[in-house]
Amino acid sequence: MNGNSIGKALTLTCFGESHGACIGAIIDGCPAGLPLTEMDIQAELDRRKPGSEVIGTTRREEDKVEILSGVFRGYTTGAPICMIIRNVDVRSEVYEQIRYKPRPGHADYTAFIKYGGYNDYRGGGRFSGRITTAYVMAGAIAKKILKIVNVEVLAHTVQIGDVRVNRDLSYDDIRMNTYKNPVRCADPEAASLMERVILEASEEGDSVGGVVEGIALNVPAGLGEPIFDSLDADIAKMMFNIPAVKGVEFGAGFKAASMTGSENNDEYAIKNGKIVTLSNNSGGVLGGISNGMPIVVRVAFKPTPSISKRQRTVDLAQMKNAEIEVYGRHDPCIVPRAVPVVEACLAFVLADHAIRSQKVPRVLRRK
Amino acid sequence: MNGNSIGKALTLTCFGESHGACIGAIIDGCPAGLPLTEMDIQAELDRRKPGSEVIGTTRREEDKVEILSGVFRGYTTGAPICMIIRNVDVRSEVYEQIRYKPRPGHADYTAFIKYGGYNDYRGGGRFSGRITTAYVMAGAIAKKILKIVNVEVLAHTVQIGDVRVNRDLSYDDIRMNTYKNPVRCADPEAASLMERVILEASEEGDSVGGVVEGIALNVPAGLGEPIFDSLDADIAKMMFNIPAVKGVEFGAGFKAASMTGSENNDEYAIKNGKIVTLSNNSGGVLGGISNGMPIVVRVAFKPTPSISKRQRTVDLAQMKNAEIEVYGRHDPCIVPRAVPVVEACLAFVLADHAIRSQKVPRVLRRK
Amino acid sequence: MNGNSIGKALTLTCFGESHGACIGAIIDGCPAGLPLTEMDIQAELDRRKPGSEVIGTTRREEDKVEILSGVFRGYTTGAPICMIIRNVDVRSEVYEQIRYKPRPGHADYTAFIKYGGYNDYRGGGRFSGRITTAYVMAGAIAKKILKIVNVEVLAHTVQIGDVRVNRDLSYDDIRMNTYKNPVRCADPEAASLMERVILEASEEGDSVGGVVEGIALNVPAGLGEPIFDSLDADIAKMMFNIPAVKGVEFGAGFKAASMTGSENNDEYAIKNGKIVTLSNNSGGVLGGISNGMPIVVRVAFKPTPSISKRQRTVDLAQMKNAEIEVYGRHDPCIVPRAVPVVEACLAFVLADHAIRSQKVPRVLRRK
Amino acid sequence: MNGNSIGKALTLTCFGESHGACIGAIIDGCPAGLPLTEMDIQAELDRRKPGSEVIGTTRREEDKVEILSGVFRGYTTGAPICMIIRNVDVRSEVYEQIRYKPRPGHADYTAFIKYGGYNDYRGGGRFSGRITTAYVMAGAIAKKILKIVNVEVLAHTVQIGDVRVNRDLSYDDIRMNTYKNPVRCADPEAASLMERVILEASEEGDSVGGVVEGIALNVPAGLGEPIFDSLDADIAKMMFNIPAVKGVEFGAGFKAASMTGSENNDEYAIKNGKIVTLSNNSGGVLGGISNGMPIVVRVAFKPTPSISKRQRTVDLAQMKNAEIEVYGRHDPCIVPRAVPVVEACLAFVLADHAIRSQKVPRVLRRK
Repeated sequence: MNGNSIGKALTLTCFGESHGACIGAIIDGCPAGLPLTEMDIQAELDRRKPGSEVIGTTRREEDKVEILSGVFRGYTTGAPICMIIRNVDVRSEVYEQIRYKPRPGHADYTAFIKYGGYNDYRGGGRFSGRITTAYVMAGAIAKKILKIVNVEVLAHTVQIGDVRVNRDLSYDDIRMNTYKNPVRCADPEAASLMERVILEASEEGDSVGGVVEGIALNVPAGLGEPIFDSLDADIAKMMFNIPAVKGVEFGAGFKAASMTGSENNDEYAIKNGKIVTLSNNSGGVLGGISNGMPIVVRVAFKPTPSISKRQRTVDLAQMKNAEIEVYGRHDPCIVPRAVPVVEACLAFVLADHAIRSQKVPRVLRRK
Repeated sequence: MNGNSIGKALTLTCFGESHGACIGAIIDGCPAGLPLTEMDIQAELDRRKPGSEVIGTTRREEDKVEILSGVFRGYTTGAPICMIIRNVDVRSEVYEQIRYKPRPGHADYTAFIKYGGYNDYRGGGRFSGRITTAYVMAGAIAKKILKIVNVEVLAHTVQIGDVRVNRDLSYDDIRMNTYKNPVRCADPEAASLMERVILEASEEGDSVGGVVEGIALNVPAGLGEPIFDSLDADIAKMMFNIPAVKGVEFGAGFKAASMTGSENNDEYAIKNGKIVTLSNNSGGVLGGISNGMPIVVRVAFKPTPSISKRQRTVDLAQMKNAEIEVYGRHDPCIVPRAVPVVEACLAFVLADHAIRSQKVPRVLRRK
Repeated sequence: MNGNSIGKALTLTCFGESHGACIGAIIDGCPAGLPLTEMDIQAELDRRKPGSEVIGTTRREEDKVEILSGVFRGYTTGAPICMIIRNVDVRSEVYEQIRYKPRPGHADYTAFIKYGGYNDYRGGGRFSGRITTAYVMAGAIAKKILKIVNVEVLAHTVQIGDVRVNRDLSYDDIRMNTYKNPVRCADPEAASLMERVILEASEEGDSVGGVVEGIALNVPAGLGEPIFDSLDADIAKMMFNIPAVKGVEFGAGFKAASMTGSENNDEYAIKNGKIVTLSNNSGGVLGGISNGMPIVVRVAFKPTPSISKRQRTVDLAQMKNAEIEVYGRHDPCIVPRAVPVVEACLAFVLADHAIRSQKVPRVLRRK
Repeated sequence: MNGNSIGKALTLTCFGESHGACIGAIIDGCPAGLPLTEMDIQAELDRRKPGSEVIGTTRREEDKVEILSGVFRGYTTGAPICMIIRNVDVRSEVYEQIRYKPRPGHADYTAFIKYGGYNDYRGGGRFSGRITTAYVMAGAIAKKILKIVNVEVLAHTVQIGDVRVNRDLSYDDIRMNTYKNPVRCADPEAASLMERVILEASEEGDSVGGVVEGIALNVPAGLGEPIFDSLDADIAKMMFNIPAVKGVEFGAGFKAASMTGSENNDEYAIKNGKIVTLSNNSGGVLGGISNGMPIVVRVAFKPTPSISKRQRTVDLAQMKNAEIEVYGRHDPCIVPRAVPVVEACLAFVLADHAIRSQKVPRVLRRK
């Protein structure tokens, strides 16, 4: 199979470009009998919109979903579900300059080389952050599938630039506070600082990166198909398919490298008749299989490559050095808008594995 | 397809358990006409052996490869190549205790749950580090395939416990020095400190983790199949399928999160008629596609979970709290032996994509 | 991956239902740089329309294609190509009766069981012959890909009811005459008889079946990936995914069962410097690999299950025996309209294998 | 994934050559907890041996299976099961002549072209009928999986040369009589005639073909994943991957082409509280999904291409016309030995779909 499909029991196929007719997502393998409406999808898409006009793009993205197939009288049918959002408010002229002058940090150059210059370069084309609307649409369905087995998926910003969340957050903090501020950070104080960092970067024509944490609660032990479809491996793969991601870690992550075994090992105990671990350095995955503890994954995003500062580049047509200033309507930090995307990606992989492990039936019972 | 196969144009299928008859690897999709002997594979397997009796396992692992199919008169035939190594010097009795008392940090508990207690628990069974011999066998072939297009793959230890390599290493340093010390570190001074850290942990019945860096040189621009088989996504997935990996990052990685766009963007220039970037914060991948710069990936390993210190666990048969002390012949740090595994995994994914991108022909020309 | 995608190097994903918003097809893996317009697709779709009002459905199916992605300024970009046709002139009320009374010979019962009654049953839903428009859209692109390597794909009716084409037809007969009559038969005399057979069945409220032959000319030797993705195996799989197909055979096919080896073996000879076989009982495939001779495949279609004669069925809601008369706008013989579908399916599989075998590049050179 | 693996929930990967070290099969996705011993596999392999010295090969094929992985203390573990049979009694010299002189009807020429002459040509190498031992090993496991849901799979010879079984056979006839004669025909009278036909061909240095029928009883309704992994499509694909198969049909098959809808439609009725059809022209599959009636598939085999009569061929080294007489130890009719292979292939596909449809659990309960 080709590179625009992912997932084995639940499959997402994505199509569309930033300035083409639409962005589309097809979910195949969704159990029949799941109640599903466009509103379910729309609610998730709306969470991906900029939380503030100041720190987000000014492109008007309605992102209104249409379900084209696979749903009949309010229920999924077992057939593939195609969802699209039309592209509107497209201004393509500005992108003519990047046709032969690749923007540093973007996929302009690699796409040009790979597709022999035939790629749609307008707005980044296939490599635009807009394709993550497809991930969110898929995630909306995945989250509904996971609810069948009581799995809850969360995501929140834990770092922007140098500002990190330094205090322990409860799951309720994350549930309640994340979408109360435009940076999608569950710690209100850190959120203010993060917002300022973004504004400062924005004012300088620059951008900043950050880290998003994804969490899944109540995941049944036993998800994951080692040795090559390990649960963490599949989650990591999905996360790296989000544009701008440069690192992924689970539980203690890179810190585990400097820990001793006696510090890092999560000891077992029985609590309320259930087997738990007394710490969660593993991030809920052992040997590629969920252990019943929360899945915790952190995803590092690089700063938005679109900056208005003058940068060196090359002219591909004339094969000579050149310069570029990137104008357009870009987010000076894509991290806040990546929060629902990370959540969607985590949900998608878990739903795929929940079906694959037969924790979720292929046909849901009528109530 | 199931979880014990990976790769699309070049496919690795793995089988075998730590204390079963053998560990096996099947490579399908290898071009016909590649010169290949058991010595090619053996040389790579030998690099995975402990570099020292003091810091590695004392299990005698001959790891002698046999090619069972796919090679005829010294050349690959285009048919699947099956390679096995027999398991020898197996002492299984010690593992009877873990049948119902899962070792913290190991896959004992998750495997028990997933497979209903039917899993072969001897020596970790399917979840033993020994399965990485299959990765190394596959990598040996992958490296030969990559040589056709002049790609070179390297790996070296950059951190063990708190000891990090702090100076810039040239590729020649890495080529020449990595295997001169048992920790597989290209910086001799750091190597000594790392060795000491491992010994100290070992003496305390404890263990340490670390970080391995993989590098691929001369990778042609254009490898990777976005949006879901991105090159970095596929590399990350493969790395997370190595036991004990908890984090993966490319280029600036997690550091990119605290950089500005103007710091992090890699500007383009023409050097010697070739397009290059003036920095390599991207680690050689943009938009999921190689850009012709070195691929740089860092892989975080947790400390070996096998420690002889007493740990809390549970008794799965009686569903009550319990304790365990893990004895056996374990590496107090698996990082050094993971170096050729990371190299193999990086090589495998690159070879898969090189064939998929048609950079490597399906049949090699006779010279 | 799930059941609504097929092909490995060239992948077709299909969605949509007979009475839903649209039928859609996504082609992934198409080489970048292929000139492609909606007219290319429309021309093929138009060949699938009924050749006559008398022997075809009276449902007005405009089947007007829209390309939603993957094409930019007249060329494919290497990104997935999504094509849809909107459903119009839908009359769904008549299908309320089949909700619980499955029509014999249709998928009504099996879909009901498989999807727990959630399936869209209007017009056969996902199991309607209308889904073959997706095959034809995919085939239109496949045929353009095959032209790059000079492969030509043909199909024609060779049997309807008891009427068989009994004389040898040249490829030019097939090229010139097939679409000159509504039954898509290259032999004008047989065509008249076939038309009469269909009319007779139609007048009796009955239906008839038939056989379509697909032919591919100038196929390069070496296509096919044994042992499990054999060329004939993949073609057969694709053909059986056409509704109503009950048999597939290559070359001498079932007749080979009663031949001797000396009759059936195709002997080799050199003609004009090229290796050919002196007969083509193999139908162009040996050991699952094309041998350079014409691929010849015959596909048996059962009679349209929709007949207006009274039939016994069951009432699924009340679990009792029942009767049904199927009215609607059905083709009394679907064979003529299956001709371009068989052609498309053959083209799709060959294009998939041509790319997989690297006979077709991933990026086409600009002229 | 590559061409030497097949199946999605249950995956078979095959390796090995006729005159190499062994033939191997790996089953991945088998439920954990299935009792399995080498005897289970051996019993099926033994049924593939020639039923008579007169009409079968004289090559001594012990075909003794070794299980290398995936089974622990008599039960499957959920890990991949690797099984091999060693090749013995190999006489390779005779095959030197075919290196450049392809035998008509064999894959010699196509393999030579596809793999650039690197293929192992000894005994047909990868294209030998011996690879079907892998199918039988896989089928042995598949049959045990199917027993969990009470599915029974049968196969028997229905035609050899011109001799057809002309009377109705009960399932008990097939169960009891098939292996009572060397041609594996459940009708003793036809069996005698078939045996004579084979002997006559053999005496003339010629060979004959035939037809094998596969039957699956008690298949639950609902197996199959339309529109592209239809149950019949997957069965057909598997059958065409058996060497020498030229046609596959279900139920009425090619005869359906000349039937009317009212003859061919299978009407529904309720019998003993169960929905059945009053005929089975569909062969148990409607819309690509099993309907609960017996699956009936017929598979046409061409005559063994190895004949000792002089045949025209070409000399590939010198590119000139040549002649060949094929000597060796070949079955003058491979149909009898294909009977357990057809049975195995049918069982494999059904088991794959039974797991995929969640009719079979991933872990079997301990009794």
